[in-house]
Amino acid sequence: MECQEYGLTRNTERDNLNLNPLQRGGMLPIEARKALIEYADGYSVCDYCAGRLDEVPNPSISGFLQDLAKFINVDEVRTTHGARESKFAIMHALCEPGDTVIVDGNAHYTTHLAAERNKINVIEVPNNGHPTYEITPEKYRETLENAIDSGIDIKLSLLTHVDGDYGNLADAKAVGDVAHKAGIPIILNCAYSMGRLPIDAKALNMDFVVGSGHKSMAASGPIGVLGMKEEYSDALLKHSKRHKVKEIEMLGCTSRGAPIVTLMASLPYVAERVKHWGTEVEKTRNFVRQLEEIEGVHQIGVKPKEHDLTRFETPIFDKIAENHPRRGFFLYEELKKRNIVGIKRGQTKWFKCSVYGFSEEQISYIANSFKEIVDKYKDLI
Amino acid sequence: MECQEYGLTRNTERDNLNLNPLQRGGMLPIEARKALIEYADGYSVCDYCAGRLDEVPNPSISGFLQDLAKFINVDEVRTTHGARESKFAIMHALCEPGDTVIVDGNAHYTTHLAAERNKINVIEVPNNGHPTYEITPEKYRETLENAIDSGIDIKLSLLTHVDGDYGNLADAKAVGDVAHKAGIPIILNCAYSMGRLPIDAKALNMDFVVGSGHKSMAASGPIGVLGMKEEYSDALLKHSKRHKVKEIEMLGCTSRGAPIVTLMASLPYVAERVKHWGTEVEKTRNFVRQLEEIEGVHQIGVKPKEHDLTRFETPIFDKIAENHPRRGFFLYEELKKRNIVGIKRGQTKWFKCSVYGFSEEQISYIANSFKEIVDKYKDLI
Ligand SMILES: Cc1ncc(COP(=O)(O)O)c(C=O)c1O
Ligand SMILES: Cc1ncc(COP(=O)(O)O)c(C=O)c1O
Repeated sequence: MECQEYGLTRNTERDNLNLNPLQRGGMLPIEARKALIEYADGYSVCDYCAGRLDEVPNPSISGFLQDLAKFINVDEVRTTHGARESKFAIMHALCEPGDTVIVDGNAHYTTHLAAERNKINVIEVPNNGHPTYEITPEKYRETLENAIDSGIDIKLSLLTHVDGDYGNLADAKAVGDVAHKAGIPIILNCAYSMGRLPIDAKALNMDFVVGSGHKSMAASGPIGVLGMKEEYSDALLKHSKRHKVKEIEMLGCTSRGAPIVTLMASLPYVAERVKHWGTEVEKTRNFVRQLEEIEGVHQIGVKPKEHDLTRFETPIFDKIAENHPRRGFFLYEELKKRNIVGIKRGQTKWFKCSVYGFSEEQISYIANSFKEIVDKYKDLI
Repeated sequence: MECQEYGLTRNTERDNLNLNPLQRGGMLPIEARKALIEYADGYSVCDYCAGRLDEVPNPSISGFLQDLAKFINVDEVRTTHGARESKFAIMHALCEPGDTVIVDGNAHYTTHLAAERNKINVIEVPNNGHPTYEITPEKYRETLENAIDSGIDIKLSLLTHVDGDYGNLADAKAVGDVAHKAGIPIILNCAYSMGRLPIDAKALNMDFVVGSGHKSMAASGPIGVLGMKEEYSDALLKHSKRHKVKEIEMLGCTSRGAPIVTLMASLPYVAERVKHWGTEVEKTRNFVRQLEEIEGVHQIGVKPKEHDLTRFETPIFDKIAENHPRRGFFLYEELKKRNIVGIKRGQTKWFKCSVYGFSEEQISYIANSFKEIVDKYKDLI
């Protein structure tokens, strides 16, 4: 059989400054790269398995899970294939088809898909609209109470800790309190926070926290985290009737290979980097300040920024695009000439980006590049 | 936070001849190792995603899936996180809780778990017992007909192509015909076959074939294959109501990271190696012949072998263990001294092993090692 040429290189993304928020928190430190090479082959972590992935002694997955549980302050933790698979598993274990869950209006599409795959209805807490798109605990409470008053039995609630559209950091503790006052278990979706900033599930009054290794924990995809309070471990980690040691929701085992060793090797690095989250937020705010010096560039979402994912409305670039021979592609192409990638090709009305992990010097270079481009085309405005 | 030492090295398995059947088909060729390093970071395959993993043009996941579909002769194919996740998805899409499926008595525990997680009942086709433990098409038909006659509505059937206990190769075509004569869709679980031997889903009269990248396709875990006939793609690949392009059973996307690029990079290598399956079977038969020269070592399962996974009953080693100061550990320890690993520590009554991918010279060395050990302890027998 003749196979096609798949183009398995990633030079462009490696050789350039990549502003794609999706890619900033998943870059591996050297220890994780070493572990990846060591455990490249097939079922590499299963050599010493006695039937349970979470109890493998060598490499010490069991020790790692103890550390991970401490890192996010939960009673029990498992790895899954991603944040979405964690959400699916929780909903699957706690709900029946036809049940209703409440989620914030900034929830990721994977939250909706996890519910849809479980045939569960979703009630949404609206955000407060343009320009901050904030989810407030008051609105969460109001929406929840209205649903309950109208006779709907809410089985589960979810809050997106940091959403992927605006990079808003929600007030998790307050929403946790709202859910518990109504007697409803709550999931915190930490795909964009766990591994970037410190997470303390108990302090945030959360029953479940889910994380994404490839998104924010310096791990190879796909791998997720599913942390829970003791009282839910019977439901989530229920054993098979026939294969007594196997956990049903995990289908026996989940991340049986390379990604889990990268998550393990990265944990010390990640545990250290979350301590410097304040510096990252400062860098993001500096970046926003520099970009907003351009007339016609406005950060939207909550201000000042509390997370690196940043959305800008950029009518000025849209204006240039109208008159530029390359139309909307000019911005991507001009940035690329300056070794900057990660803004979608053709997009000029608005964009999302992140400078997480870049140095102040790189950030200034990026901000100046945007300014240069505006300057270059000032006649088209 | 102080992290424990996780012991992230795999020297023992790399520096020794590993007989563990689980590990023989998942070893990466050099192209896959290169791709793994290239795509180590987080969501590395998502740079050029326009919303659908299976349509990513760079690296060409879309081109790869076309090749993969040809390789196994199916109309549609997706990657999942493993064979078990493929089975779960099929059952989830086609069955309701309380439904009944029929599976062979040699089915892997993950088949049972996929059903249990879906709250589906399982009827089993018994194998023919010691010593061959064979699943015959006649028994499959009889069990299925009995179930139907007793009024049970069978929604789906499954056959394990090569089982993980005896390494028997089932007569898939004949069982496919049985299922279709009864109007029931059928899954072929090719975890131990796809990537080792040629699979032609249509020639085998199968509606679904599932594979395991880390087990038999020279890929990093976890990754699976889910191939299907056209007529089931509407059910399996149904789109979300709200997020129109996203496939519900895939939760939007599945293998968003490193394992998929190893599967891609390995496909040309795997497509080539399945052509030499006959040679692998010959090597296994030679190995069996050499081991059976030891009195008190018998291959069980179908004879002659049609697959590399081989189970031996070894009363002779059990006898030695009775009288050896190290008891059951002696075999593991003696093999280890000879740079052979992969037989479970403490196991002497029987064991499973595989010489897939070893040279004739290595195979003779392994067989002679077993003979040497028996010889060394002949006084204990
Ligand atoms: C807020 C949020 N949740 C969940 C996800 C999905 O994470 P995973 O790929 O681990 O399922 C994303 C990814 O973009 C996200 O932004
Ligand atoms: C016959 C069979 N099916 C399925 C599996 C599980 O494969 P995966 O890890 O891809 O889910 C195995 C693994 O041991 C197996 O032997």
